[in-house]
Amino acid sequence: MMIKFDVSNAGLQENILNYQDKVSTIHTSIHDKTCKGNDFLGWVNWPVDYDKQEFERIVKVANKVKDKAEVLLVCGIGGSYLGARAALEMIKGLYSNDKTEVIFVGNTFSSTYFMQVKEYIKNKSVVLNVISKSGTTTETALAFRMFKQFMEEKYSEEECVERIIVTTDKCRGTLKQLAVEKGYETFVIPDDIGGRYSVTTAVGLVPLAIAGVDIVKLMQGAKDAYNEFNTADLNTNVAYQYAVARRILENSGKTCEMFVSYELQLAMVAEWWKQLFGESEGKDGKGLLPCSATFSTDLHSLGQFVQDGNKILFETLLLVEKPQIDTLVPHDAENKDEMNYLAGKSLNWINQMAQLGTLEAHVKEGNVPNLILTIEDTSAYSFGYLTYFYFKACAMTCLMLDINPFNQPGVEVYKKNMFKLLGK
Amino acid sequence: MMIKFDVSNAGLQENILNYQDKVSTIHTSIHDKTCKGNDFLGWVNWPVDYDKQEFERIVKVANKVKDKAEVLLVCGIGGSYLGARAALEMIKGLYSNDKTEVIFVGNTFSSTYFMQVKEYIKNKSVVLNVISKSGTTTETALAFRMFKQFMEEKYSEEECVERIIVTTDKCRGTLKQLAVEKGYETFVIPDDIGGRYSVTTAVGLVPLAIAGVDIVKLMQGAKDAYNEFNTADLNTNVAYQYAVARRILENSGKTCEMFVSYELQLAMVAEWWKQLFGESEGKDGKGLLPCSATFSTDLHSLGQFVQDGNKILFETLLLVEKPQIDTLVPHDAENKDEMNYLAGKSLNWINQMAQLGTLEAHVKEGNVPNLILTIEDTSAYSFGYLTYFYFKACAMTCLMLDINPFNQPGVEVYKKNMFKLLGK
Repeated sequence: MMIKFDVSNAGLQENILNYQDKVSTIHTSIHDKTCKGNDFLGWVNWPVDYDKQEFERIVKVANKVKDKAEVLLVCGIGGSYLGARAALEMIKGLYSNDKTEVIFVGNTFSSTYFMQVKEYIKNKSVVLNVISKSGTTTETALAFRMFKQFMEEKYSEEECVERIIVTTDKCRGTLKQLAVEKGYETFVIPDDIGGRYSVTTAVGLVPLAIAGVDIVKLMQGAKDAYNEFNTADLNTNVAYQYAVARRILENSGKTCEMFVSYELQLAMVAEWWKQLFGESEGKDGKGLLPCSATFSTDLHSLGQFVQDGNKILFETLLLVEKPQIDTLVPHDAENKDEMNYLAGKSLNWINQMAQLGTLEAHVKEGNVPNLILTIEDTSAYSFGYLTYFYFKACAMTCLMLDINPFNQPGVEVYKKNMFKLLGK
Repeated sequence: MMIKFDVSNAGLQENILNYQDKVSTIHTSIHDKTCKGNDFLGWVNWPVDYDKQEFERIVKVANKVKDKAEVLLVCGIGGSYLGARAALEMIKGLYSNDKTEVIFVGNTFSSTYFMQVKEYIKNKSVVLNVISKSGTTTETALAFRMFKQFMEEKYSEEECVERIIVTTDKCRGTLKQLAVEKGYETFVIPDDIGGRYSVTTAVGLVPLAIAGVDIVKLMQGAKDAYNEFNTADLNTNVAYQYAVARRILENSGKTCEMFVSYELQLAMVAEWWKQLFGESEGKDGKGLLPCSATFSTDLHSLGQFVQDGNKILFETLLLVEKPQIDTLVPHDAENKDEMNYLAGKSLNWINQMAQLGTLEAHVKEGNVPNLILTIEDTSAYSFGYLTYFYFKACAMTCLMLDINPFNQPGVEVYKKNMFKLLGK
């Protein structure tokens, strides 16, 4: 099993297996497409059903533009932003001497951010991937209008066609129309997969492939997870175990779930997870508030609250068995810092001891329930596997609350008000 | 007034002014140093009492090493990390073509992060500033041991003395000893100022000055805030108004405060704020859970939860009147994206309309109380002013709960367990 799930530090007041009947019923309703939100179940079989020809084309196009991309601008918001960024940071880490720097735009109205990025890239070789289903999401459409103009001033028309890639609806929408007319390469956002479930579609795969991520392995991970979690059996399906454990903790009075990792490169996975769970579950006055921390960094910040503050939260750890790189603490003859007791130990072993010590501190002394997820590594394969695990867990846990996991009616309210103010 | 505070969207069920007596008593106890935690009140008069000679030395040393610092490594954790990073991002933004890139280390046990940074900087010109009161904070001490070795392999002994700067205790500790012996330049972490209140001491000022921030203006902001908030009068002291409003919202059943801004460059200010409030207030089973979001980015993520989910939270907006740079939406003859209705409008105006539309959506339709703080800009002056505002608000709001705002006993629990496991 690629993901381990441990509830032994959560003090669950109910047995997960008591929920087997409910879980079986919901599992069936997901797979026979009768559950709430059944128009948006395309993600369920996607790891086996995905368009193999399009996938090949993604690889081909990525290989073609890679060398032109000192900077890859990814223009999108929400699900068209968070998945690729989470994957990139998890798989590649936070610092590298890679040729391609990926910069995310179209996810804000900040004029400072826009102008600073524009100035920063002006003398660099740029490839632009815009991602929007309709083409009319305001943040993304405005940024694309402005960066397209930037590209057209910088490059010839032919060169722009080589450097602008559009991920959008198969047939409809303003962006699709534009792409056809200009001759841009286009990839498809499927009709039946919502933004937050879209990272293994072209939405995530195009930028990841251009940035040099092995998307074949990523899809293999998703496929293996699809097979692993294609069962209602709560004895074996850890995605459903996690889904049920969240509800049991909520029943015992918890209102917030804190996503905790011990690797800075997982901070954006936390942000992606917040969208997936917050946007799927935060409806009808219900849901667990998703928040996050990176330890041990934030043990010197939010740690105090977790340890001794208001007991409204539980933690869900995402641990990694094998770091990408490890190193040994060197010996120091002078030992002024008194750290020689750790000389010869690996840094990752010390990180693991911090995990164990914190677990005991938070659970036993702090009385904060801890769920623990453990993945093998931070590879592309693990990312594909992990995201499908979360999809399945999220759908189940929302449907247990009788909530549609796939819509986001609340997101429209601010837009409606904003459009009025903008005079649309 | 440099900071505006607006409670008109918070639906407060009590009048802030009802708390005048309590606030006056606490204000006196802060200023005559009789309140809880009175050993750590050095921050109160710091904007006028700070060591002017040391300040001049910071400016001088910064000017001397600036040109050597293609990369400035800042090695610290908690208050020795978050303040400088928050300031840097707020004041300089997220993308620039500045000569000096600042990288934060010593704030994690992640071996991948450590090794990636080391690889990333190996051919660059590096200056290292280590920040630790005792020198024995494990994350920081290990990273400093390893990066010091890196420096000693890369540079001569004399050159290391020019490139390593130590911020630590005035007299004691392993780091102080080492610095004296090696002849490193040292700056002081005052005895009576805790980590999370230390950004306007050498802790924050040294890295900021090297990175080119105008620390004279930053201190001027802190000083102006010191004068502004040096009164118990709830009619005029907006720091205390904010402190009281938090308690009133808590009394009405809210358990989480969400820090919301509309500028990506304020995301680290939110992290800094989380430490200040979470670590000060999260004690004795009490406190508001601090969490954060950046809008409109996260309106396509956590926005759904805020709008329609469990009503456990209130929002505190930090708005900025003047962005660093603004730009106009260009006209597009083809108008394929249907965005010409915004042509000629400034991007910041659109951002403001998003703020107004969201405020109405969350408050009126979502029934989520909103407190609104507005600052003029994201300058060094505003950063200094803002942080002092938060210090004063934080001390008051904690003391209203009869909590010591300046200790962090819960942070020791994980350390104790970890040291046992590490065999210390």
